[in-house]
Amino acid sequence: MSNLTGIAASNGIAIAKAYKLAVPDLSFSKQTVEDTKSEVERLTSALEVSKSELEKIKEHARASLGDEHAEIFSAHLLVLSDPELINPIKDKIESENVNAEVALDETAQMFIQMFEGMDNEYMRERAADIKDVTKRVMAHLLNVSFPNPALIDEEVIVIAEDLTPSDTAQLNKQFVKGFTTNIGGRTSHSAIMARSLEIPAVVGTKKVTTAVNEGDLLIIDGIDGQVLINPSDDEVAQYKQKQEDFEKQKQVWAKLKDEPTVSSDGTHVELVANIGTPDDVQGVLNNGGEGVGLYRTEFLYMGKNELPTEEEQFDAYKSVLEQMGDKPVVVRTLDIGGDKELPYLELPDEMNPFLGFRAIRLCLERDDIFRTQLRALLRASTYGNLKIMFPMIATLDEFRQAKQILLEEKDKLVGEGVEVSDSIEIGIMVEIPSTAVIARQFAKEVDFFSIGTNDLIQYTLAADRMNERVSYLYQPYHPAILNLVNNVIEAAHAEGKWAGMCGEMAGDSIAIPILLGLGLDEFSMSATSILPARTQIKGLSKEEMASYKDQLLSMNTADDVEAFVREKTNQ
Amino acid sequence: MSNLTGIAASNGIAIAKAYKLAVPDLSFSKQTVEDTKSEVERLTSALEVSKSELEKIKEHARASLGDEHAEIFSAHLLVLSDPELINPIKDKIESENVNAEVALDETAQMFIQMFEGMDNEYMRERAADIKDVTKRVMAHLLNVSFPNPALIDEEVIVIAEDLTPSDTAQLNKQFVKGFTTNIGGRTSHSAIMARSLEIPAVVGTKKVTTAVNEGDLLIIDGIDGQVLINPSDDEVAQYKQKQEDFEKQKQVWAKLKDEPTVSSDGTHVELVANIGTPDDVQGVLNNGGEGVGLYRTEFLYMGKNELPTEEEQFDAYKSVLEQMGDKPVVVRTLDIGGDKELPYLELPDEMNPFLGFRAIRLCLERDDIFRTQLRALLRASTYGNLKIMFPMIATLDEFRQAKQILLEEKDKLVGEGVEVSDSIEIGIMVEIPSTAVIARQFAKEVDFFSIGTNDLIQYTLAADRMNERVSYLYQPYHPAILNLVNNVIEAAHAEGKWAGMCGEMAGDSIAIPILLGLGLDEFSMSATSILPARTQIKGLSKEEMASYKDQLLSMNTADDVEAFVREKTNQ
Repeated sequence: MSNLTGIAASNGIAIAKAYKLAVPDLSFSKQTVEDTKSEVERLTSALEVSKSELEKIKEHARASLGDEHAEIFSAHLLVLSDPELINPIKDKIESENVNAEVALDETAQMFIQMFEGMDNEYMRERAADIKDVTKRVMAHLLNVSFPNPALIDEEVIVIAEDLTPSDTAQLNKQFVKGFTTNIGGRTSHSAIMARSLEIPAVVGTKKVTTAVNEGDLLIIDGIDGQVLINPSDDEVAQYKQKQEDFEKQKQVWAKLKDEPTVSSDGTHVELVANIGTPDDVQGVLNNGGEGVGLYRTEFLYMGKNELPTEEEQFDAYKSVLEQMGDKPVVVRTLDIGGDKELPYLELPDEMNPFLGFRAIRLCLERDDIFRTQLRALLRASTYGNLKIMFPMIATLDEFRQAKQILLEEKDKLVGEGVEVSDSIEIGIMVEIPSTAVIARQFAKEVDFFSIGTNDLIQYTLAADRMNERVSYLYQPYHPAILNLVNNVIEAAHAEGKWAGMCGEMAGDSIAIPILLGLGLDEFSMSATSILPARTQIKGLSKEEMASYKDQLLSMNTADDVEAFVREKTNQ
Repeated sequence: MSNLTGIAASNGIAIAKAYKLAVPDLSFSKQTVEDTKSEVERLTSALEVSKSELEKIKEHARASLGDEHAEIFSAHLLVLSDPELINPIKDKIESENVNAEVALDETAQMFIQMFEGMDNEYMRERAADIKDVTKRVMAHLLNVSFPNPALIDEEVIVIAEDLTPSDTAQLNKQFVKGFTTNIGGRTSHSAIMARSLEIPAVVGTKKVTTAVNEGDLLIIDGIDGQVLINPSDDEVAQYKQKQEDFEKQKQVWAKLKDEPTVSSDGTHVELVANIGTPDDVQGVLNNGGEGVGLYRTEFLYMGKNELPTEEEQFDAYKSVLEQMGDKPVVVRTLDIGGDKELPYLELPDEMNPFLGFRAIRLCLERDDIFRTQLRALLRASTYGNLKIMFPMIATLDEFRQAKQILLEEKDKLVGEGVEVSDSIEIGIMVEIPSTAVIARQFAKEVDFFSIGTNDLIQYTLAADRMNERVSYLYQPYHPAILNLVNNVIEAAHAEGKWAGMCGEMAGDSIAIPILLGLGLDEFSMSATSILPARTQIKGLSKEEMASYKDQLLSMNTADDVEAFVREKTNQ
């Protein structure tokens, strides 16, 4: 029996057997093959088996997780049908008289190295796809079994070095009660997926894969970031109690589902959710979301070979708006480029993609793409309460240009006889320091602000939050961040506008009291954070929090801020 | 006769014949070689000729341009002696029976592709070195002549696609009257070199290499960014006049060399210079610099195979301090990492190096390197008026840690009986938005601020200034930048500290009136910008400029700011 400590990535307690998501031994030896024809046939057969397996997994993922999650397998299927990858493998067998394993491995390695060397997130994902797929084909060539998390059919806790998008897309929460990994942090892909699936997760344990054996009984505590291996009966009883308490807590939260969010001294704020696809709306409603504060539209553009049509986009926007009824839906226009590339756009590689050609910068240059999205949004506007938000605005000129394009498309549509809502608010993400600094100037022209803290923090501290060596500088409580946030809120209110926040910070229990005190109007977060946040806010006095404002804004360090808030709010 | 417009990169007018810095035709055919022994000898001989040529060029560069500029050729000589490159070429000749040209080309290409694929500035420079050197050896194998700008011995204007560091290191201003290139901007390497050499330059003409023929008469106007090809006699006369006026202007400037910098209404500010090596000090004094506002110490660490010793550093710091006498010298501690890598540190590749593990972040972790530099600085402190400045400070904790390490080293030295100055000011670069925002908190603990606008602008607008697709967002006059600068100056003055600026902005004729009005105390710039800046400031009323402050800080866009300043200052 031993315990591991990791990062609490998704709330809840799970108790179940360990299921190791390990890659089987795929070693092989090089052989000279005389009968290359039947060797090629052996390869073809392994490819076919892999394809039909992937088709099945894809359907399984589509049924249990939704369309978006199934997309990854379409990408894998494309790889298996790509003649640029497959033909060189066959050629190698024929011209070098080697066995299929060698030909597959050497050819795939070449592509993987080439794509990985490109320092381009999209190509690296392609490299990851080829790796995934190659392993599967290799397993079939070698007749060893390959783990398919989608096919798990008993209750388990998944253990892995890390979970790839391909892995998480396969997790079925009916059987997968939680997972724990060696690497990752609260904002890593697998952590976000866990919260979206509402299963407990502990990431970044450093060594869970070596400390745990297949079939070990595990407890994972996603509230406090603990993993217990082969716990004693007492511990199991204790954690069952904690699990029960958590479930009760969730029921308490659930009672607040249809209540407004009001502080103890009567101030109402809006708690809304971040979503990525129409499939996510149900989770927002189930968790008592008062609206959508950030609809990321990038998924519509990803995992495809061409831009989404206006019609496809219209359908998605309409679906979200209709499902949300009269609740507000803030749609962020395309934030692509930088590290999120699309193959069909052929963007150049960049030395610093986070400081590069992305989002509104790209949309203003490629206004064909932008106009298509805006038309789809405008057409959908009559189906609900739409607000449009532009990302990565750094200058007032950019906002003016973007708004001008929007108004042009509106005029065109109206001229074509299409009905368009007349009450669409037009706002911006505040995620670039320049915009936070001159929020006063912006507030005269925009309808609302939504502070994107994930980017705002990394730009304000000049530290890539994905880079482990400087991630200690990702400091939401840095007094500079609080000053910028305060500046944005004050600027909005001075002009009678509203200010929201749609970064991770908006759902953080230390940040919430501060933001309430600063007067933030709208908090947008993961759907599952809404009810805990509502509970917390009901217990906070806005007046008290506001009285700490000057003190907080003049503090020296993030640690000072955190210690102060913990003391004042008993956390 | 036709004109080209480019970017004015270095002041002045040059009139001379065009000298094209073009690479000769180095095409070759593949041949089967039976006598591989004499083929290897042919290669060896080409290598030897190249080496002795490079030795000559290196000496030439050292004599006319100084040690630092000659370093690039040491790197080239290292490449030519590197068995990891040379042996595979010989092996290829022997094992594949190919001619030396093929063996050289294929081997070099492999290394170049490998290094270029690494997305690491240092390795890319090594790729550029190998390219340079390979061309030279290839030219000798093919018996065609290779251009050596160092050997130019008549008055010319150099024309090129772009100038590599290797090219600019060879330019002798006695003969090279100016240069003009197809690509580049005001902050590109070749532009900075031109200002440092004090020769006129127009970069970014897009097509000067195709528009101009070897030997054409050219006029380049580095003041207004014009290139005149085969100008008429009238034009030559007109530009000779402009050249004369410019020389007269320079003489007027020169009269201000030993005068203080005082505005028309009597406010004194300090005009100081940015330097990279002790060799640069003479230029500072010749141009009337009142001190060194930024001594970049990175050159001491570059182009080497190991860290510089404490003694080497001590010698360099002492030399600068002694040459500057009692004038202030602000030394910035090591700003390496990010895009400026050192091979012997083995730093990991980063996705966004500008937001990465660099400068103080690296120095606090590798405090062995940091302590050595601080010891060298402390020991040199008694030879002049030293101020120490930490780069890339984002949190007060970082400053406190860095200062603590400095004080520890000082105590150790004093304990060892070494004399250390007791009046060293300790300050920080303000180049990260977080620090500019909470300058008030920092001002209580630092002795001074120096605003590093090059980085501050790119972080504040989240735009990589080296990335052409977003370089339009590099906006020094963005109202957010002015607000941050104002915040830093006010914070410093509230605590009785001083605030300087050491980015390009400090020498800019639109920014200078604004900065004077905001109360900036010290302007650090290229040495050659000092006298024009002094002239400008003598004609400005600080009181008038200060009266525009509120208006400027609440403007909407950079264009509004620029238009306003141009109007008020008749520019």
